[in-house]
Amino acid sequence: MTAPLHEVHPAGPGRALPDTQQGMRRRNLGRVLHTVSAEGPLSRAAVASRIGLTRAAVSTLVDELIRFGLLEELGPERPGRVGRPGSALAVSGRGPAGVGAEVGVDHLAVCAMDLRGRVRARAVRHVANRGRSPKPVAEELAALVRQVVADAEQQELWPAGLAVAVPGLIARDGRTVVRAPNLGWHDTDLGALLPGDLPLTVDNEANFGGLAELWLGDGTPRDFLHVSAEIGIGAAVVVDGRLLRGTRGFAGELGHVPVEPDGPACACGGRGCLEQYAGEEAVLRAAGVEQGEDRVGLLAERAAEGDERVRRALRDAGRALGVALTGAVNLLDPQLVVLGGALAGVAPWLLPSLEAELARRTAGPACPVAVSRLGPKGPLLGAAHSVVRAVLDDPAAVAERA
Amino acid sequence: MTAPLHEVHPAGPGRALPDTQQGMRRRNLGRVLHTVSAEGPLSRAAVASRIGLTRAAVSTLVDELIRFGLLEELGPERPGRVGRPGSALAVSGRGPAGVGAEVGVDHLAVCAMDLRGRVRARAVRHVANRGRSPKPVAEELAALVRQVVADAEQQELWPAGLAVAVPGLIARDGRTVVRAPNLGWHDTDLGALLPGDLPLTVDNEANFGGLAELWLGDGTPRDFLHVSAEIGIGAAVVVDGRLLRGTRGFAGELGHVPVEPDGPACACGGRGCLEQYAGEEAVLRAAGVEQGEDRVGLLAERAAEGDERVRRALRDAGRALGVALTGAVNLLDPQLVVLGGALAGVAPWLLPSLEAELARRTAGPACPVAVSRLGPKGPLLGAAHSVVRAVLDDPAAVAERA
Repeated sequence: MTAPLHEVHPAGPGRALPDTQQGMRRRNLGRVLHTVSAEGPLSRAAVASRIGLTRAAVSTLVDELIRFGLLEELGPERPGRVGRPGSALAVSGRGPAGVGAEVGVDHLAVCAMDLRGRVRARAVRHVANRGRSPKPVAEELAALVRQVVADAEQQELWPAGLAVAVPGLIARDGRTVVRAPNLGWHDTDLGALLPGDLPLTVDNEANFGGLAELWLGDGTPRDFLHVSAEIGIGAAVVVDGRLLRGTRGFAGELGHVPVEPDGPACACGGRGCLEQYAGEEAVLRAAGVEQGEDRVGLLAERAAEGDERVRRALRDAGRALGVALTGAVNLLDPQLVVLGGALAGVAPWLLPSLEAELARRTAGPACPVAVSRLGPKGPLLGAAHSVVRAVLDDPAAVAERA
Repeated sequence: MTAPLHEVHPAGPGRALPDTQQGMRRRNLGRVLHTVSAEGPLSRAAVASRIGLTRAAVSTLVDELIRFGLLEELGPERPGRVGRPGSALAVSGRGPAGVGAEVGVDHLAVCAMDLRGRVRARAVRHVANRGRSPKPVAEELAALVRQVVADAEQQELWPAGLAVAVPGLIARDGRTVVRAPNLGWHDTDLGALLPGDLPLTVDNEANFGGLAELWLGDGTPRDFLHVSAEIGIGAAVVVDGRLLRGTRGFAGELGHVPVEPDGPACACGGRGCLEQYAGEEAVLRAAGVEQGEDRVGLLAERAAEGDERVRRALRDAGRALGVALTGAVNLLDPQLVVLGGALAGVAPWLLPSLEAELARRTAGPACPVAVSRLGPKGPLLGAAHSVVRAVLDDPAAVAERA
């Protein structure tokens, strides 16, 4: 599998499959599995009524999914209903699992997620990756993957694929890191450095963060802009439930939207980019907080204590975010802006000026802003879940490989 | 039909149709018609190989489309090929036609387009619509529609739908003008003011301009940003061949992206919006050109004559467009920016500063900028073609109504 896993069927089951009897069957297998995943446990009859196929057609599909080991029967439903009691179906907690991994500036993390979306194994290592060459980082990551996979296998799970979140621009081949300034990597074929035994996708951490919000967030709409500010500021644009990737795969570079056209020079070649005002380094500098472990935690602590310099730095960053987001909202008209990543931890001091700026620059009601509950866990969970989604989208492909 | 015509099947034939035998047949009818429309004349065998169905299946679909009057046979192909000569198929130049209409600040226009994409009838009336109440404007437009339809009917065409381009924000119901500041309209149900005998869609002129570029432009890619600057500055964001509409239908409001956060106040409530620097009024004011007929023509004339004040005004507008487009390109990563609308007429004096600004603010190769060849005709052609597309997408629906 060479295409990024979550690109195989970008808008749910079967978009890419040919319109033949065989393609229809594969799409319908995905529909059944998605329906049980989203709403289960469900009886065959309930599935049939939800996806608009006959009960007989659904039964055939369900039997196949049970044979694949992707669905399981929970036994007969409670009596008292009309007609013969049906057996409730649930997505299996064994079988294929998604393995997600994250290369952070100061950590590596891996987890395995079952088809029910539960994390069943994980490993984290704190390590300074800035300026480190890609090869030893990939080797260390591969060792963590092996450890998590072994742990998952003990629980009757097998890895259906590996998805890796990286803080940088990733080519549309889903494996090449074009530029990751905070790691010091460029034009790095990460795919070639990781073991080839699992289908692999490499993607930008802000993309996985946004997808996590879409798939795992609490009532997140299908049209939103997810902002994830760590050292860099990235965004994920989700339109009608699909991530907007851009021609080269570089969409969502909110950090380099001009906020003050004649502002300070930025490494990107521009001037007055958002990162110059709201990036972690800029905020820490303005707040007078030295760098160290958990700097964002320190910021939040000082802001909570009423440190006026820290509060002003966060207020100014919120204002700059508000200007950049006004432009984004005007272009995209999202239903919601979600603040994720490290930013989520200082949201109480960023949000007021951010929201005021958005409201004052918008005719009519301003776009609402919410804070992600996934926070910094988003990218890792999104990576693992992208593999799970690929299984739900085309169960027959997974069954062929099992 | 209540949904906007071009929304019925947003990504081509059949997205919205159920995955049943009947739905599959309808989708495949659309596929055949689209293929002949894009690449015809074609034999049945050529169609079959292009869409990956058997020759027998395609023959059945073709016979149905001929019976509907949507395809016609041009007679046997030239001899000399292997096997029995096939008859070349072409999309019919009779039958259903798309009627497009445009409400401009200083004109009304209507045209009828056949399934081959040729304009077969048109009518234009120059009239000052600024501040005019919607009812008489709609009545005058309806009279022009009747005239164009009568003309088309003389040519064995019948109107399959009416699509109206309006310079304003249109609700997602495809009929309500939420705000059209340059007409002075707000919350106007244009659908209720126009005759109800045709399926109707009302849409923003920048949206139709962008769609025209997608459908009728010369080699336009499937990911681009179309800028159309008339009195207001609108944009259409096209991603993978689909127009991005936004939650409320308001996406593409490039004119209100902040360029200088502390710049002059704008009617939208913001400050330093792009329209304050590159909107027609701002440019005319900076250029010292009084308002009058064909003001953009006058600007182009003076710029060509070397008028330094006019050239400076256009250079400054280009620079502001470059700043706003840097933000848009960072967010969307389009393959191309297309300058359309009235702007296209002064492109030689806008482009150099616009492109310089984009290049200087972009790491790596900057996004290329092209000038639309449709220019100010885009919205009207896009409107008419949106009706044609709806016929190609779901021919069976049209046949039921014929």
